[in-house]
Amino acid sequence: MNKVAILLGSKNDLPKIQGCFEILEYFGISHEVKILSAHRTPKRTSKFSRQACNKGLEVIIAGAGWSAHLAGVMASETTLPVIGVPIASSPLNGLDALLSTVQMPGGIPVATMSIGKAGARNAAIFAAQILSLKYPEIREKILAYRKEMENKVKTNAKKLKQKLSADT
Amino acid sequence: MNKVAILLGSKNDLPKIQGCFEILEYFGISHEVKILSAHRTPKRTSKFSRQACNKGLEVIIAGAGWSAHLAGVMASETTLPVIGVPIASSPLNGLDALLSTVQMPGGIPVATMSIGKAGARNAAIFAAQILSLKYPEIREKILAYRKEMENKVKTNAKKLKQKLSADT
Amino acid sequence: MNKVAILLGSKNDLPKIQGCFEILEYFGISHEVKILSAHRTPKRTSKFSRQACNKGLEVIIAGAGWSAHLAGVMASETTLPVIGVPIASSPLNGLDALLSTVQMPGGIPVATMSIGKAGARNAAIFAAQILSLKYPEIREKILAYRKEMENKVKTNAKKLKQKLSADT
Amino acid sequence: MNKVAILLGSKNDLPKIQGCFEILEYFGISHEVKILSAHRTPKRTSKFSRQACNKGLEVIIAGAGWSAHLAGVMASETTLPVIGVPIASSPLNGLDALLSTVQMPGGIPVATMSIGKAGARNAAIFAAQILSLKYPEIREKILAYRKEMENKVKTNAKKLKQKLSADT
Amino acid sequence: MNKVAILLGSKNDLPKIQGCFEILEYFGISHEVKILSAHRTPKRTSKFSRQACNKGLEVIIAGAGWSAHLAGVMASETTLPVIGVPIASSPLNGLDALLSTVQMPGGIPVATMSIGKAGARNAAIFAAQILSLKYPEIREKILAYRKEMENKVKTNAKKLKQKLSADT
Amino acid sequence: MNKVAILLGSKNDLPKIQGCFEILEYFGISHEVKILSAHRTPKRTSKFSRQACNKGLEVIIAGAGWSAHLAGVMASETTLPVIGVPIASSPLNGLDALLSTVQMPGGIPVATMSIGKAGARNAAIFAAQILSLKYPEIREKILAYRKEMENKVKTNAKKLKQKLSADT
Amino acid sequence: MNKVAILLGSKNDLPKIQGCFEILEYFGISHEVKILSAHRTPKRTSKFSRQACNKGLEVIIAGAGWSAHLAGVMASETTLPVIGVPIASSPLNGLDALLSTVQMPGGIPVATMSIGKAGARNAAIFAAQILSLKYPEIREKILAYRKEMENKVKTNAKKLKQKLSADT
Amino acid sequence: MNKVAILLGSKNDLPKIQGCFEILEYFGISHEVKILSAHRTPKRTSKFSRQACNKGLEVIIAGAGWSAHLAGVMASETTLPVIGVPIASSPLNGLDALLSTVQMPGGIPVATMSIGKAGARNAAIFAAQILSLKYPEIREKILAYRKEMENKVKTNAKKLKQKLSADT
Repeated sequence: MNKVAILLGSKNDLPKIQGCFEILEYFGISHEVKILSAHRTPKRTSKFSRQACNKGLEVIIAGAGWSAHLAGVMASETTLPVIGVPIASSPLNGLDALLSTVQMPGGIPVATMSIGKAGARNAAIFAAQILSLKYPEIREKILAYRKEMENKVKTNAKKLKQKLSADT
Repeated sequence: MNKVAILLGSKNDLPKIQGCFEILEYFGISHEVKILSAHRTPKRTSKFSRQACNKGLEVIIAGAGWSAHLAGVMASETTLPVIGVPIASSPLNGLDALLSTVQMPGGIPVATMSIGKAGARNAAIFAAQILSLKYPEIREKILAYRKEMENKVKTNAKKLKQKLSADT
Repeated sequence: MNKVAILLGSKNDLPKIQGCFEILEYFGISHEVKILSAHRTPKRTSKFSRQACNKGLEVIIAGAGWSAHLAGVMASETTLPVIGVPIASSPLNGLDALLSTVQMPGGIPVATMSIGKAGARNAAIFAAQILSLKYPEIREKILAYRKEMENKVKTNAKKLKQKLSADT
Repeated sequence: MNKVAILLGSKNDLPKIQGCFEILEYFGISHEVKILSAHRTPKRTSKFSRQACNKGLEVIIAGAGWSAHLAGVMASETTLPVIGVPIASSPLNGLDALLSTVQMPGGIPVATMSIGKAGARNAAIFAAQILSLKYPEIREKILAYRKEMENKVKTNAKKLKQKLSADT
Repeated sequence: MNKVAILLGSKNDLPKIQGCFEILEYFGISHEVKILSAHRTPKRTSKFSRQACNKGLEVIIAGAGWSAHLAGVMASETTLPVIGVPIASSPLNGLDALLSTVQMPGGIPVATMSIGKAGARNAAIFAAQILSLKYPEIREKILAYRKEMENKVKTNAKKLKQKLSADT
Repeated sequence: MNKVAILLGSKNDLPKIQGCFEILEYFGISHEVKILSAHRTPKRTSKFSRQACNKGLEVIIAGAGWSAHLAGVMASETTLPVIGVPIASSPLNGLDALLSTVQMPGGIPVATMSIGKAGARNAAIFAAQILSLKYPEIREKILAYRKEMENKVKTNAKKLKQKLSADT
Repeated sequence: MNKVAILLGSKNDLPKIQGCFEILEYFGISHEVKILSAHRTPKRTSKFSRQACNKGLEVIIAGAGWSAHLAGVMASETTLPVIGVPIASSPLNGLDALLSTVQMPGGIPVATMSIGKAGARNAAIFAAQILSLKYPEIREKILAYRKEMENKVKTNAKKLKQKLSADT
Repeated sequence: MNKVAILLGSKNDLPKIQGCFEILEYFGISHEVKILSAHRTPKRTSKFSRQACNKGLEVIIAGAGWSAHLAGVMASETTLPVIGVPIASSPLNGLDALLSTVQMPGGIPVATMSIGKAGARNAAIFAAQILSLKYPEIREKILAYRKEMENKVKTNAKKLKQKLSADT
């Protein structure tokens, strides 16, 4: 029984959302990936949304480009939290996907992340943060992840310092 | 049996789309108006779309603001032409509604009009232009409408001229 | 006698609009292509527009970049439905072409599609949707196209699933 | 012990975020409101964030305008989910607040809602959706809220229909 | 025989372009005003453009809002310099009119001014600058206008200084 | 004695403005090119502007990127018509240069062309249009240029037609 | 001998920059105000800039709207730090002034503040921060100002708390 | 004891800020570089800011991309002048970083430079301009730098002239 479903509007978006899987795996959160299009497979999309809760899913992540309706459509038929990742696949570099995802009218929220790869990774982290309220062991993993991230910044900072003094 | 359905995401958008009814009436095209929300009433919206063709409708006009998904959702479940009117109800003055309506990914088109009242009127005219291919009497009415519009410009031009010579 | 005319502001835009021909061919809709510039060949453009209806054309698709006036100019002299495709040829990535095409003042509508290649394909599909009201056989083809599109998404979804289980 | 904290960058933003309180009250979710500025009271802000988890809070909602850093600063020192509401208080109508809130670099997510009042209401609903995973009674309330919202749309639709037939 | 024609897409734009007349009068440059719509009166517009040169006109000023095509259409059928004034009449505050006017493709230039009233005044001044090459007396008037403008700034500067010392 | 001066903010902009020289040469209009920076060589820039008229220059073309002040600075010290070409050299793709060039406050106009290479060519054509009022032989050359441009479009149109019938 | 000069492109901008004076007075920093236009009084502007340093000025604040060149022009003729305040006086709400002020090409920096009244106040504070390096007593005043600002946030926070408990 | 600290949100931004070091070295201004993330290392960032003044630093330069909070966070805990450099690392080409850096609410200013490499160089020059008020020898170096810059423009202008006469 997976906790998180990652939905994509198109298989072309798969490489852009790669970081999302990696981080969920790092956190040990079971997940599934599905290609579902709000516009090209509306019935399947709608059905998936209505059944998500009963299948035991707890968070839905939806990534789409252009006039990205996938996350909004998902959100309209489930009470599970839906996280939207705007993908930069159109000539407007994702500004269209961002506004289509985030500017939801009052009543049906989509938790929107930043455009593209950074947003895909953040969607996984945010899913973990939501789940950590119920599953305390996930909170431990987030704290470890943060520590690692902080250490990476420190190591880079130290390397830079050494390089700079070596240059002198 | 109505030829055109005008769908609105919210009853607040009604005054902004007024011009749409007036022009359809001018053209003598039977129509109906419905409040349907892609997000708040997804099932009704989806059902309406699937049945539109069988009910004898021939064109669908959908007006919505914010991350306006209504026209796209409609378009995904019918082969009838769907015309989208972006409404300027958010702080971004309709830029969000425009991009959410027009930037449809390949496969499911929405014929997008200009933002707001001008777009609402144009949606009615465009519906008439589509229908005129099948119903030649509508073409006559469009020609008359154009003539009238042209005359109004000419009258305004003449009044301005008189006013200006009176000023001298 | 062709049903659809595809007009281009510049021959450089030809590869960007390729998908438009392919889809019209798929639908078996007879069409012609013309290079016509609103600014560089205004008389020819205007003449084409005025005669389009008498030549038996039923839908006009106009693709242009920069301050894209071609679709608007076309629309002003014919009652045929005009579909505009904004092309991303300027440094502003098609935002200029989008606003120049879609923001038509009240009275003369242009049915605007998304920017670039996706928009070019959608223009062909939308033309087919318009024509399907009069020619029911086209409706059958649209339904087939949609089915195929849906199946492609399903196949991609299935392939992804197999790949993912193979990875484990 | 409150479950949700609502933080505001400035007391001027209070009326814009009113809907947030109302909805949390509707859902019976205990909450507190605080004025905290990422820039003017950095230490208090940072301290609040570090202690939020231990105080039993489960979700943080942060609303701010201009180069809205409040949600991001909050998110950087807690593992609780942080929801950001961009407020339209600058001459750029909230586009600056939207980009400052949503475009978080990889590592520290902020769940961004739409700009302004709609976003404030959606923040409360999204907080409820998160909490509903752990507290099933909240899920019931969300379903009731949705039903009510759907009924309001239906009532409006019906009223409109009556009004329109009365007009004829 | 007028030297300058001022063309407007709609009579509603008249008050926005008022400053244009005033400045041409100040410079003693004979001019005429016409309401002509690229979209609603295409033939008249096109005819005016083709005859402008023979009627003795030397500069054309065209003001329009929305997807402002008027200046571009004018420019395509005359060799006279055409000055475009984008008018802020749509919900996008004139950004659409600006891009539609200025982003002309290579071959047919439109000399674009700033959006709105400032642009209307600048169009008159720029027309005077063009004409001053051929009519040296106009150059004298421009120099006088500049002097006056400079003096107004100086007077304002002085008044401010007096006010400020009075305040102390 | 040159009629047109082409000023550039940076030598890097030279290839982007190449088309400007070519067209002036085609029209046989004598011209000079200068690298002058509003910010890095303010005195030389200001001096050039003040002396331009006495040196017999009749039109100034100024191309610059980023917060492009060159054309505005030029315009403030001469009564000659100044044409501005926004260059796309910054990460904002010339939107900054466009707004900095076109949005001149009331009093000092800059005739702004489209961004980049198309704008550079149009600047030369517009300079020719201005000069044609005083030098009728230039008007003949513009008419010839237009004819050639029109023929090129027609030839492309014909080639396309042949190619398409060959394909069938 | 004043330490700070506040320059304005137009007397209309005076009320928008009011906060700037008040804060400099609060800090006890002597200052002068001048109306100077980069475009309408270029010589006075340029002269002021060249002499600023010798007159004992240490920081220049320049506020302007539209294609705001004032700060850039100032910066090009002095080595004193120049602070730019973009003013929202055009239909584009100050986006034009922001980009014209901040996007200076490499070599001549302008320290840009936020658009409008907030930016005017911040310009004064930033001037004080610069001067505090040389005049330690100003640093004390900045610390006091910050303390006061922090206390105001705390007082507002407390009032809000009392009001909320009174409501219950 | 260094006068200037250059802070970077990520080591990937290092090549984009290279010009900053080079110019500080040219001016002989001692400086240090640090990788510090507002979001990933909040405590270190906050600590650095609070101690900056006591360590003898006089100016802080902070470069960051996306929703760039680094400069704002720095500015909130020190009275030293903070210069922000928006970096173009996201799909929005730095527009997000620009607005997040420059649109600071009233009270805590960040002196914002242009996006990217030009901004990085300008940050160093602006730091030098600030320091020159207290250290007159730096002023001499700025004057020399300006002279050199001016000469480079003149040399380029001369080379261009020679090349052009050689071409004839």
